Amino acid sequence: MVECTPATDAVDESFLFLTRAGIDTHQEAVVYMREDCHVCRSEGFSAQSRVRVCVGERSIIATLNIVRGEFLSHQKAALSESAWLLLGAQEGDKARFKHAPPVESMSHVRGKLYGKPITLDGARAIINDISQERYSDIQLAAYVTACASTSLSLPETIAITQAMVECGQRFDWGKGVQVLDKHCVGGLPGNRTTPIVVAIVAANGLLMPKTSSRAITSPAGTADTMETLTQVTLSFEAMRAVVEKEGACLAWGGSVALSPTDDIIIRVERALDLDSEGQLVASVISKKIAAGSTHVLIDIPVGPTAKVRSQALAERLGTLLTRTGEALGLQVKTLYSDGSQPVGRGVGPALEARDVLAVLQGRAGAPLDLRQRALTVAAALLELGGACAPRAGLALATTTLESGAAWRKFVAICEAQGGLKTPPVAAHQHPILASRTGIVALFNNRVISRLASLAGAPTAPAAGLDLHVRLGDRVEAGQPVMTLHAEAAGELEYALDFYRSHPEVLRIEEEVV
Amino acid sequence: MVECTPATDAVDESFLFLTRAGIDTHQEAVVYMREDCHVCRSEGFSAQSRVRVCVGERSIIATLNIVRGEFLSHQKAALSESAWLLLGAQEGDKARFKHAPPVESMSHVRGKLYGKPITLDGARAIINDISQERYSDIQLAAYVTACASTSLSLPETIAITQAMVECGQRFDWGKGVQVLDKHCVGGLPGNRTTPIVVAIVAANGLLMPKTSSRAITSPAGTADTMETLTQVTLSFEAMRAVVEKEGACLAWGGSVALSPTDDIIIRVERALDLDSEGQLVASVISKKIAAGSTHVLIDIPVGPTAKVRSQALAERLGTLLTRTGEALGLQVKTLYSDGSQPVGRGVGPALEARDVLAVLQGRAGAPLDLRQRALTVAAALLELGGACAPRAGLALATTTLESGAAWRKFVAICEAQGGLKTPPVAAHQHPILASRTGIVALFNNRVISRLASLAGAPTAPAAGLDLHVRLGDRVEAGQPVMTLHAEAAGELEYALDFYRSHPEVLRIEEEVV
Repeated sequence: MVECTPATDAVDESFLFLTRAGIDTHQEAVVYMREDCHVCRSEGFSAQSRVRVCVGERSIIATLNIVRGEFLSHQKAALSESAWLLLGAQEGDKARFKHAPPVESMSHVRGKLYGKPITLDGARAIINDISQERYSDIQLAAYVTACASTSLSLPETIAITQAMVECGQRFDWGKGVQVLDKHCVGGLPGNRTTPIVVAIVAANGLLMPKTSSRAITSPAGTADTMETLTQVTLSFEAMRAVVEKEGACLAWGGSVALSPTDDIIIRVERALDLDSEGQLVASVISKKIAAGSTHVLIDIPVGPTAKVRSQALAERLGTLLTRTGEALGLQVKTLYSDGSQPVGRGVGPALEARDVLAVLQGRAGAPLDLRQRALTVAAALLELGGACAPRAGLALATTTLESGAAWRKFVAICEAQGGLKTPPVAAHQHPILASRTGIVALFNNRVISRLASLAGAPTAPAAGLDLHVRLGDRVEAGQPVMTLHAEAAGELEYALDFYRSHPEVLRIEEEVV
Repeated sequence: MVECTPATDAVDESFLFLTRAGIDTHQEAVVYMREDCHVCRSEGFSAQSRVRVCVGERSIIATLNIVRGEFLSHQKAALSESAWLLLGAQEGDKARFKHAPPVESMSHVRGKLYGKPITLDGARAIINDISQERYSDIQLAAYVTACASTSLSLPETIAITQAMVECGQRFDWGKGVQVLDKHCVGGLPGNRTTPIVVAIVAANGLLMPKTSSRAITSPAGTADTMETLTQVTLSFEAMRAVVEKEGACLAWGGSVALSPTDDIIIRVERALDLDSEGQLVASVISKKIAAGSTHVLIDIPVGPTAKVRSQALAERLGTLLTRTGEALGLQVKTLYSDGSQPVGRGVGPALEARDVLAVLQGRAGAPLDLRQRALTVAAALLELGGACAPRAGLALATTTLESGAAWRKFVAICEAQGGLKTPPVAAHQHPILASRTGIVALFNNRVISRLASLAGAPTAPAAGLDLHVRLGDRVEAGQPVMTLHAEAAGELEYALDFYRSHPEVLRIEEEVV
C-alpha cells in the first residue's frame, strides 16, 4: 500500500484542488488532470495511468484521463461522478496523487488463465478488491472472461460464493430460524410468480422476507411490478417491522448492499454479452445467504429462447446451485419449468401486477399458467419448510389460494409496507394483428422483452405488452395477437418501428389438418 | 450496419454540433453528451452506450460519457482526442448519433470461450474490427484474456497471424529478393545486439532493412538507442534510399503501419500484465512478413527473471514461431540464449549506444557478452542468408567485426540516415554500493529495467544505469556495483527512492570457501 501522508514540510507542493467534472463514466472512477500540471510531470503520469487520489485519510484509485484544452484550470484536478461520490469529495478539497500500486489480486486472475484454480484466498482477494472498486474496467473484463462459460469448477464456484457472502452485509433473522426464499434464473417475460408465492407461503405461517431486484435489461423486475402495488423502498428497520408483523415482505433489495460486487460484475458481463455458469451460481447463492435464507427454491425455465436452452444445461446448473448451497449451509431445491413462451398475459410492471391480482383474487380469466406455476413453486416451498407432508404441498397451496387466505395475506403485507395501490393503465395502446391464418408455433422471448422495453417498461410502469394468444392457439389473419402499451406516443412509435423490423416476435404456421 | 443518412426533411433536428474536449482517454474513443440533450433522450442513450457518431459520410463508434454540469453547452457533443482524430472532425461539424450495432466479431471471441477454435474467417473479422477501432476497451480485454497463456493452438495462431498481415501495409523489396531480419523476444536489459548484427550482415553484402521499435515499458528500444547515434525517423522513401545505398538501415518502424492492430492489443495486454503465447507469435511473425522479410533469426533469452523463464517454455515458443512462419512462407531460425543477467554494462539509450560503439570499434574494455551475443546472432544470419557455409558463420562474423568492416558499414549507414552523432552523457550520476561482501548471485532483470525507467530512460536519452559487476563477481562491502544516471535531480531522487525499497535488484551471497 502506498501511504497518503499529508504534507509535513513547507516545500511540498504536490497537491491539486479537486473539482467535480460532472461526467458520468458509469462505474469506473476517472480523474482528469492537465497534461502540463506539476503533478503529472513529477509523478510521470500518462493517459490511462491508475492513480491513487488522496484527501486527508481517504483515498480512491482512479484511471487518469489527460486534459489538453482549457476545460480544467491550473492547479485543479477533476473527478468523474463515480470517483467524486466514492471519495466523498468536496469542491476545492486539497488532494495528493500517487501511482496506484498494482492490484495484487489480479495475479489470481492471471493464475486462473495459466491453469491454476482459484482458491478461497484468491477468491477473497479478488472479490474484496472488486468491492473496493480497485479493478479498472479492463481488469473486470479480464476477470469476467476468465470465469466465462463453464470454466469455473465446483470448488472454485464455492470459493467465490463464500468470498461474495463475506464481502457484503448479511441479514440475521435469529438463530435456528427457518427462512424461505425463491429465485428464478431469468429469461422468461411475465414470469411474476413471486408475489403469489410469498402470499401463499406466509399465509401458512412460514417466514419469507423477500427482497427482489428491479429490471436491468428485462421489461420488469419483481420490485418494479410490486412498486405499482405498494411501497417497495424500505429501510432495513421498516422491512424488519413488516416481516415481524406479517411473516413476509415484498421489498426492493437495492437499498441493502447484500452482495456489492455482484452489480459490478453483472454490468461487465452484460456489456460483453458473456455468461459464466459459476459466476451466476455465486451471484444467486451469495445473495440468498446474505439475505439470511436457509431454504431456497430455484426455478430454472428451459426453452429455446430462454436463458437456459436445454434440459442438460439446466440440470448441470441445478446441480452446481444445489451443491454450492449445500457447501455453505443453504438448502437448495431446483425446479425445471417450461420456458418456451411468456407467462401470463402482461409483460411490463403494471400489466404483470394486473395478472398477479387476478390470480390472487381468483378472478375468472386469470392466467392459468401463471396460477399453475405459482402453485408449483409455493407447493415446493411449503414442503421444504415443513408446513405439510411431502407431496401434500400442491393441495395446501391450492387451498390457500382458493380460500382467499393468500389474497388476505398479500393485502396485509402491502398495507404493512404502506398501503395497496391500483396499478396504472397506459394512455396509448395499439393492437398487433396476425399476419396470416394458422397456429401459433413459436414465441421469441428475447424479442418480446425488447419490444416491451422499447415501449417504455419498466421506467414507464404502465408500458409493455399484453399477449392475447398462447402456443398452439389457432388465429385468423387480422386478429389481434397482442397489444402494445405505452405512456408516450413517441415510445409507442419506437416499439412499433422495432416490431415492423422484427416480425419474428411470434411465428404463425400453417395448420396441419 | 446502421446507415448514417443526412437529414432529408426539414423536421429532423436530431443532430448536435461537435467540439473537441481535449481529453486524452488513450485509445478508446469517447463522446461526451449532456444528459438532458434531445439526442440522448430520443435515442435512449445512457452512460457507457456504444454510439455511432456520423459526420456526412464518415462515422466512428465511441463510448458515451454522460455530462451533467456546464462543461458542455446545449446542442453540443464533445469528442475525446482519439475520437476527434479518428473521425477527422472539425470544430462545429454537424453530427448525427445512432446506437452502434453490436460488434459481430465478438461472437468469435465468445465462441472461443465456449470451446470453439478461432478460424481464419473469425480471425479476419476480429482483427479487422480491432483495426477499425470498433472494440471498446473491455471488449479488447475480453479478446486478450480469451487468447491468454497457451490457449491458442497452432492453427489459431496461424489464422490470427495471417489476418494481421492482411490488415496492414506490406513492404515489397522485389520478387525473389532475400531479406534478412532479426527479433529478440524481450525482457533482457541492455541486450542491444541489433546495430552490431546489422552492420556485420550488411558488410557481407546481405540485405537487412531493419526497422525497430521504441521502448514501451522497457528503458530503451533499439530505435531509442539508435536515435542517440543518428536520425531514425525516416520516410518510406528515405528508408528505401538508405537500403539501396548500404544494403541495410537502422530505422524506427513506427512511422510505417506494418501491423496496426498490434499496438492496440499490446496496450491492453500490458495494462492487464497478461501474456499470450499465440498472440506474441502472431505479433512477431506478422510484423516480419509485413516488413517484407524472408529469413528471420529469433533470439529467445531464457532466465528466471527474463520474459521466458524455462528452456521448455522457450522451445515450445520457438516451435510455434518456426511453424507459424513456415505456414506463411517465412523462414524462421531460433536461438536460445542466456537470460540470467543484463547484457553489456549500460541500460538506457545513450549508455547502450556507448557499449555498441565500443564493440564495433573493437575498444579495450568493450563488453564481451554483448560482443559474443552479437557475433552469435550475426553468424546464424550469415548462414541463413547463404553468405557462408553452414558452421562458418562465426568465423566470418568475427573477421568482419575485427577487420573494422562492420564499423565502417555502421558509419556508412548512419551517414546515409543523416550523420553519426555522439551519445549524450547524464548530468547527474550516483553510485550504488554493495551492502555486504560476497558473490553476486542474482540479477533481477525486471527491477533493473524499472530502476532505469524511473531514472528517466528512454525519454531522457542519457538516463539509465551502468552495471559494474557481473554474476559470479566477488565484491567488497561499500564497493560501487552500479551507477544511476539521470538528466534531472528529481528523477535521480525518484530512482534512488525506488532502489531503497527494492534492494533485491541484485543479490550478494556469502562466499563459500
